[in-house]
Amino acid sequence: MKLFSSVNDVTNINELVAEGLKLKQNPYTFQDLGKNKTIGLVFLNPSLRTRLSTQKAALNLGMNVIVLNMDKEGWALELQDGAIMNGGSVEHIKEAAAVMGEYCDIIGIRSFPGLKDRDEDYSESIFNKFVKYCGVPVVSLESATRHPLQSLADLITIEELKTKPRPKVVLTWAPHVKALPQAVPNSFAEWMCKADVDFVIAHPKGYELNTDFTNGATITNNQDEALQDADFIYVKNWSAYEPYGQVLPGNEDWMLTLDKLHPTNDAKVMHCLPVRRNVELSDEILDSDSSIVIHEAGNRVWAAQAVLKQMLHNL
Amino acid sequence: MKLFSSVNDVTNINELVAEGLKLKQNPYTFQDLGKNKTIGLVFLNPSLRTRLSTQKAALNLGMNVIVLNMDKEGWALELQDGAIMNGGSVEHIKEAAAVMGEYCDIIGIRSFPGLKDRDEDYSESIFNKFVKYCGVPVVSLESATRHPLQSLADLITIEELKTKPRPKVVLTWAPHVKALPQAVPNSFAEWMCKADVDFVIAHPKGYELNTDFTNGATITNNQDEALQDADFIYVKNWSAYEPYGQVLPGNEDWMLTLDKLHPTNDAKVMHCLPVRRNVELSDEILDSDSSIVIHEAGNRVWAAQAVLKQMLHNL
Amino acid sequence: MKLFSSVNDVTNINELVAEGLKLKQNPYTFQDLGKNKTIGLVFLNPSLRTRLSTQKAALNLGMNVIVLNMDKEGWALELQDGAIMNGGSVEHIKEAAAVMGEYCDIIGIRSFPGLKDRDEDYSESIFNKFVKYCGVPVVSLESATRHPLQSLADLITIEELKTKPRPKVVLTWAPHVKALPQAVPNSFAEWMCKADVDFVIAHPKGYELNTDFTNGATITNNQDEALQDADFIYVKNWSAYEPYGQVLPGNEDWMLTLDKLHPTNDAKVMHCLPVRRNVELSDEILDSDSSIVIHEAGNRVWAAQAVLKQMLHNL
Repeated sequence: MKLFSSVNDVTNINELVAEGLKLKQNPYTFQDLGKNKTIGLVFLNPSLRTRLSTQKAALNLGMNVIVLNMDKEGWALELQDGAIMNGGSVEHIKEAAAVMGEYCDIIGIRSFPGLKDRDEDYSESIFNKFVKYCGVPVVSLESATRHPLQSLADLITIEELKTKPRPKVVLTWAPHVKALPQAVPNSFAEWMCKADVDFVIAHPKGYELNTDFTNGATITNNQDEALQDADFIYVKNWSAYEPYGQVLPGNEDWMLTLDKLHPTNDAKVMHCLPVRRNVELSDEILDSDSSIVIHEAGNRVWAAQAVLKQMLHNL
Repeated sequence: MKLFSSVNDVTNINELVAEGLKLKQNPYTFQDLGKNKTIGLVFLNPSLRTRLSTQKAALNLGMNVIVLNMDKEGWALELQDGAIMNGGSVEHIKEAAAVMGEYCDIIGIRSFPGLKDRDEDYSESIFNKFVKYCGVPVVSLESATRHPLQSLADLITIEELKTKPRPKVVLTWAPHVKALPQAVPNSFAEWMCKADVDFVIAHPKGYELNTDFTNGATITNNQDEALQDADFIYVKNWSAYEPYGQVLPGNEDWMLTLDKLHPTNDAKVMHCLPVRRNVELSDEILDSDSSIVIHEAGNRVWAAQAVLKQMLHNL
Repeated sequence: MKLFSSVNDVTNINELVAEGLKLKQNPYTFQDLGKNKTIGLVFLNPSLRTRLSTQKAALNLGMNVIVLNMDKEGWALELQDGAIMNGGSVEHIKEAAAVMGEYCDIIGIRSFPGLKDRDEDYSESIFNKFVKYCGVPVVSLESATRHPLQSLADLITIEELKTKPRPKVVLTWAPHVKALPQAVPNSFAEWMCKADVDFVIAHPKGYELNTDFTNGATITNNQDEALQDADFIYVKNWSAYEPYGQVLPGNEDWMLTLDKLHPTNDAKVMHCLPVRRNVELSDEILDSDSSIVIHEAGNRVWAAQAVLKQMLHNL
């Protein structure tokens, strides 16, 4: 694997999930593989779980880890081709990416969407330029429109905890106070559409996701109906795709509460975190056994480790 | 040891001091103990000595180290139970701590007091919530009311450099320009009260410490009297406990100067650092052989290493 | 080697260059040398290449690396001797440096000039105080007036890619939008004056460098003439030495463009990066095979590794 940016970069998702679960049992078996290999983790936006879990995964594989918070420790990057750089940006992404590629065997990069220009965000121009210019294998630590390490960890979690061969998985929109990217729901949707699950997406009218990611999903505006017999409920806010990046008024009643779990099949509740308590999800769920959000976060390590192991094999 | 937050977490302080001094002689003996173990050092407030010395201690023990400056690299944490998180805080400490516990075998955390609400600070709510929710052993890197790694390093230093079995140790208040926490003097006092030393606390009227920490100490408002025959002088500013967090006018003459050392027993001068030169302590002391502040800072490594070694034994 | 701050700290630059090129062939041969040795990389100013390449070099040598962004993670240092520290600076460089020396076997430090007081900057007071007080070997990661690891990497690059025994090397001033230090051109000049090259410096009137660094160089205000038959062109902006730190109006036509390369000997174009595209250098050069700026940045690792290896030998 030379690139991990979406489910489409994975030849066989079941094998990758199985690999993750195997690594969870024996985390330190492949430390020779990463010896004297360096991963650079480049953050254009802040990170907690992604940074720590990927760092841990790399250390488990014997790698050296260099973290660079470009926004805090570095300087502003120029992203425009042909720019006359007489303004505030200090270095072009062409040079910055290429130079990091000189020092690292693999690079992980995180960049968020601006949520202003949809075409710009959905072209994944920052991420793609970085891939193009750095010249080494790249793993997405979340880009403008996808968060594939999160989705892989989610699928690992479902596979690990499911109690029937083909569980019902529901992605349900949740309220929030800020306009959030569509990266996590997009990514979760495209992974679930390829996984062996019954996949339903529930959201209020106006929060339709880009259909490129939801092909094969059942989509409804009725949360109650969606939750019926659910085995896993994935709670997540996102801003509107059209009008792009907007938060629509109302819909506070989409917050997931304990009573909404009654018609489910004793559903386990997932969330990528960070979560706004009592806005997206009630305390009573997060503090109950129904919640598997911490377990899910823990699985981020094995998702990252499975991907890095494949990349190391191909170096 | 599962928790290192105060002297009360230590079964035998003499053994811990001896362990620190033994590790100083042979720092790299126990690298198998820490192999594939990860310590997360989480800073809600900035750090120089504590971060570097704990990082070094962990590396000496063969551990992996992940540093997270939560205030700079992360986001604002919600600390209130039951909060409806529709404001500026992005993640509840319940999730943040629990997730870090998924990635780390031991966590060190630093949080400072607000110096506004004494009950809040002295309840150690941030530190205690972190301990409660992270689910792994925790070492305090300084909390609202204590700095135990500092105090252990101080005791190691006294034990190492004392020239008589039971030295006289004086903690003397010093002027400062800012309102500082009581954590260092509280902690130093409770360790000294358990150590084999004659312990005197000198401070201007109005700077009384919480008596929970000073039980057994001789307390005076007369600095000259206190310094008489002192073997070690520990210089430190703190803000008032009552009215809480206040800086009282005057007392500039409490700055320690060379002439004040004459009636001492050739006393060695200590300070936890950072120190305000010519405000807390005069240049002439800090630049003289009487000062052992750098040596003391160096011993922070062995204090941290002794504690981490005990924690690793119990994992 | 106990100090690497300028070309004058190097006994034999040819041997150091050869060492760098040898390490490039076998990066991991000397990992026993750095085992249980710790380098502290202290940044008073931001860094991309220098941090990553020095970190990589140290890891290649088996060292532990501790990075401290003093400006972001720490606090303001007092630099003035005798200061009464009742203002904004939290810790004197005397203590900060000495304490870091307690935890590190080697320290790398970066500090920039203020570009206001020339005597202050050229006295290298920050760098020199750090060296004086930390008590361990120090490598400059760029100081007020020099950037020796950059210059060593530049010389390694020239040695590696030259097609004749004594190439013509031209340092040419380039336009910029900000007032930049003279550190890189000073340093490049003093290294080139000691190397086996024909060295020419071209700059507009008013941008004369301090002659301490340029002794032996041919200096001209005619860029065309300088570039004639050049084998390597080193492009770099700097602010005026007199009046100190000023940007003089005009000189935009000093930007290096492809047509200026015609009279050269198929010159390779160098730059220390970050580079302002289409201000210092045109896109067409940076995107052409004439540019070796990325290769040059890659060689930063071997420069740092050669220096650290010598320091480790002397610990």
